[in-house]
Amino acid sequence: MAQRLDAREPSFPQAFAELLSAKREVSEDVDQAVRAIIEDVVVRGDEALIDYTYRFDGLALQPETLRVSDAEIDAAEAQCPREALEALAFAKERIEVYHQTQRPQDSMTTDALGVTLGWRWNAIESVGLYVPGGRASYPSSVLMNAVPAKVAGVPRIAMVVPTPRGDTNPLVLAAARLAGVDEVFRIGGAQAIAALAYGTSSVRPVAKIVGPGNAYVAAAKRRVFGQVGIDMIAGPSEVLILADAHGNPEWIAADLLAQAEHDPAAQSILITDSAALADSVEQAVERQLKTLPKADIAGASWRDYGAIILIDHLENAIPLVDRLAPEHLEIETDDAEELASRVRNAGSIFLGSHTPEAIGDYVGGPNHVLPTARSARFSSGLGVLDFMKRSSILKCDAEALRALGPAAIALGRSEGLEGHARSVAIRLNL
Amino acid sequence: MAQRLDAREPSFPQAFAELLSAKREVSEDVDQAVRAIIEDVVVRGDEALIDYTYRFDGLALQPETLRVSDAEIDAAEAQCPREALEALAFAKERIEVYHQTQRPQDSMTTDALGVTLGWRWNAIESVGLYVPGGRASYPSSVLMNAVPAKVAGVPRIAMVVPTPRGDTNPLVLAAARLAGVDEVFRIGGAQAIAALAYGTSSVRPVAKIVGPGNAYVAAAKRRVFGQVGIDMIAGPSEVLILADAHGNPEWIAADLLAQAEHDPAAQSILITDSAALADSVEQAVERQLKTLPKADIAGASWRDYGAIILIDHLENAIPLVDRLAPEHLEIETDDAEELASRVRNAGSIFLGSHTPEAIGDYVGGPNHVLPTARSARFSSGLGVLDFMKRSSILKCDAEALRALGPAAIALGRSEGLEGHARSVAIRLNL
Repeated sequence: MAQRLDAREPSFPQAFAELLSAKREVSEDVDQAVRAIIEDVVVRGDEALIDYTYRFDGLALQPETLRVSDAEIDAAEAQCPREALEALAFAKERIEVYHQTQRPQDSMTTDALGVTLGWRWNAIESVGLYVPGGRASYPSSVLMNAVPAKVAGVPRIAMVVPTPRGDTNPLVLAAARLAGVDEVFRIGGAQAIAALAYGTSSVRPVAKIVGPGNAYVAAAKRRVFGQVGIDMIAGPSEVLILADAHGNPEWIAADLLAQAEHDPAAQSILITDSAALADSVEQAVERQLKTLPKADIAGASWRDYGAIILIDHLENAIPLVDRLAPEHLEIETDDAEELASRVRNAGSIFLGSHTPEAIGDYVGGPNHVLPTARSARFSSGLGVLDFMKRSSILKCDAEALRALGPAAIALGRSEGLEGHARSVAIRLNL
Repeated sequence: MAQRLDAREPSFPQAFAELLSAKREVSEDVDQAVRAIIEDVVVRGDEALIDYTYRFDGLALQPETLRVSDAEIDAAEAQCPREALEALAFAKERIEVYHQTQRPQDSMTTDALGVTLGWRWNAIESVGLYVPGGRASYPSSVLMNAVPAKVAGVPRIAMVVPTPRGDTNPLVLAAARLAGVDEVFRIGGAQAIAALAYGTSSVRPVAKIVGPGNAYVAAAKRRVFGQVGIDMIAGPSEVLILADAHGNPEWIAADLLAQAEHDPAAQSILITDSAALADSVEQAVERQLKTLPKADIAGASWRDYGAIILIDHLENAIPLVDRLAPEHLEIETDDAEELASRVRNAGSIFLGSHTPEAIGDYVGGPNHVLPTARSARFSSGLGVLDFMKRSSILKCDAEALRALGPAAIALGRSEGLEGHARSVAIRLNL
């Protein structure tokens, strides 16, 4: 049973602050182990990769079998149910179309002083994509990471995925091919991150690494940051549902549980102005849990981190939403658009009662890699811009330099940087 | 005297690889000290801030003097030379105009299946700006960090700047007012980062922290990342100049030294296809060093990290540029635009012989906070997007959900997430 909060009670501010600050992740101290693995891969390359893969994944490899062959991907594809492959192709198409609209524009103008200025975007030259093995090996995540990179124009995507005891997920390999991944390696953990960052004989290094992983992978990404770029560090998933008295309690309960089944540390929250809805959602959750295959996980998440918050007016939900800064926000109210327009902090917003969050996980089009743990206050979901970077461009002719130069000289001198001032003055014979 | 490399020699690939991998920064191990400071500020708040400021800055404060008053900023402004204030206002105006063109567009469309989808950008709710004290306290950096935040629409910017023994830089305070900074606190180091991230009685917490700092500040930013957003960790500055036989050796030498005077660990590199230019630039550097006020710093940088690389054809410079991925790239050749269009990795590009990099530091318009240490391979200079974040938006009506639902159900089941499938199926009576 999730906790209940009531915004009209004097204890609410304190209870809400505690909900906000609840730690849902145990941070394992794996940093020393990860450091040693990375250093070993830097020194011994393929040999270290093969040793760790044998030790952690129970899989004996040779340098020539580190990479998954085209024939193996063919075979994997042939194994997949046609319905799943078709659904994957449908999803890929929708994700691609959505992300194409995110491609940024270059800019170049000449201003009244004759200064030409602007910027140009370029794709990152190579990207590594980490895909977890085992339970959390999701083909949909392969699409969500690789498709925006391809849309950005990244010329080379190298994917790594551990295959414990040789077990591969055929649909993950099919998704990799569908999304245009160029190379797939059957390695995982900190050793795979090290190989992508520093390179080995078999794995050429990349410029940026994206994709979720366990505590070792997250620690390795933090460590190699600087050598390569990384994406955000993903935490447990979250949904916040905002509903009024007209909300359908069974549908809302299903959405709360869809989030909760990801992870015992996932968080599902309902905010409503209807005490009757709060009660019926609570009952529906208990009822639906009885037949849910992942009832253990979903039940633990709902019990430990779930919450139902009763408020007096829906407008008063907005400041609470912004403080929670949820990864996923569903607004199932009459004036959903209007309420949504007043939200500052949310990774993604689902409007109306016919937009369950699971649609966004797979086939909506927007990315499902989204900021967790309140980081929607300062960051965005994954997109095309994460696979590009901008070079600013500036050009003066002699006249433009005469117009700008004196102010640059004054500021250089005021900062004690005479060399800066001179590099301008020498061109103006000053 | 900088090192000389010749691309036509067999030893070049090895020598260039060594140039690329040369470590220019000593990474001080300050992480444990920083951790203790942060924990102390979290627990003791203002009291800890005041203690550390007394210990590290030799300045005795009270809670009510942590913040710099409006009257003090008035007084600082009155102290500044009019020429510097005018140059600052000129720079601010140009930076503002450039960054206004970076404001991103929202998007919302309804596709053929009736799915409404798009995104909305919002400004980050509050930003902390770190400004170093002492030698590296640059008013231009205040503008470069605060102006894009204001253009993005950030409602609250809190600046921190240490004032050792009470010494303040009046032009830094004037720049803060000019740029629209809302609050200024006379604190620095890891304690200031902790206050911005976690808040104290006097310093309200922010959602993101930007701005350069020493090893303690950098380590503190890494530590609070997640609690708040951070910008990149800046390394020593760099310039790469690409010039042909028509380049002016005195101007090029001045630009190499302008970069070198920042820091003994700064790096200035010239790539040219003219052996004669290489020689005359080298001589000009030595000559100009004799009268440069910061000759000690610039000379050490040029000696330890400077380089002149001779190549046979200018086109062959492009792969070297992309591997170096310089913070600043000057192209002083006849076909500068054409060469620039083929560069993938550079923080900022300066075209032609009348665009010294120092113009970009102050009054060009583009941002001078740029990726260093080869990180232009995967990241961009500071801009308006760094102060905004995007919420994706999705809306289905009943019909749209019927169109998307079956594929979502298929993918949910293929990933073993029955709760996801049910949250869709329950709305379709499946």
